[in-house]
Amino acid sequence: MEYTHGPNQPVLVLSEEQSWQLLSHTSHGRVATAVAGEIDIVPVNYGVHNKKLFLRTAPGNKLASMAINAKVAFEADGILADEAWSVVVHGTAELLESEADIQEARESGVSPWIPTQKDFWVRIHVDSISGRHFELGEQPEVAE
Amino acid sequence: MEYTHGPNQPVLVLSEEQSWQLLSHTSHGRVATAVAGEIDIVPVNYGVHNKKLFLRTAPGNKLASMAINAKVAFEADGILADEAWSVVVHGTAELLESEADIQEARESGVSPWIPTQKDFWVRIHVDSISGRHFELGEQPEVAE
Repeated sequence: MEYTHGPNQPVLVLSEEQSWQLLSHTSHGRVATAVAGEIDIVPVNYGVHNKKLFLRTAPGNKLASMAINAKVAFEADGILADEAWSVVVHGTAELLESEADIQEARESGVSPWIPTQKDFWVRIHVDSISGRHFELGEQPEVAE
Repeated sequence: MEYTHGPNQPVLVLSEEQSWQLLSHTSHGRVATAVAGEIDIVPVNYGVHNKKLFLRTAPGNKLASMAINAKVAFEADGILADEAWSVVVHGTAELLESEADIQEARESGVSPWIPTQKDFWVRIHVDSISGRHFELGEQPEVAE
């Protein structure tokens, strides 16, 4: 993807399409949850299918506590020497149980970080998606 | 650092010391906040000093809304071909205003992602830190 920053414009707001494209080419992100006032954040592998996010995780993972129709925030990013991007999603997480749902999840191509047999599936319905592209650089000196 | 996984132990729980060491050698993470029931997550650059985390960010960043003594969760990770690590911190964020506080923040060595002059500083007091090291691998086939 090409990113055209204007002069003095180190942060570029991406379109939804650009944001989805970045998410589709990455497989690692983090999910933030706030259950009973306890805020938490967990690293996840994810897949994208039909503009939904799919996670597959081991039992006992904290994702279990948030997967009951809970509001979540999700972030994925990529950092190179002189540029970076970050995409943030707000949505609702749902624990998948039916075979049809799990089949859809499999089509996202998500694979878990660690080998385990009894994992479970989570689908995140996306309410909003936003992306930023950053030109990295030095902090300018403040004029005295 | 050496990580010694046992057989069938793809996830290794790290000590606090190991977790701090990983945080000290990284500079990019994410902060999750839940203000007025709205959960959010933002990418940040950070520094570590005296077992506290320091962020430096531009005005208008969502961090401003969370920095008023808010509980936050923070995550940093690293991913290689066959291993990964993730460290999660729970703590309280504080907007820094005094010159002494900002001097301490500077000693953390944090630099912001993007060049701007009027940035502000946030300190995260750490309540808990936990780390995991993952041996990545294929999902085992389920025996029929």
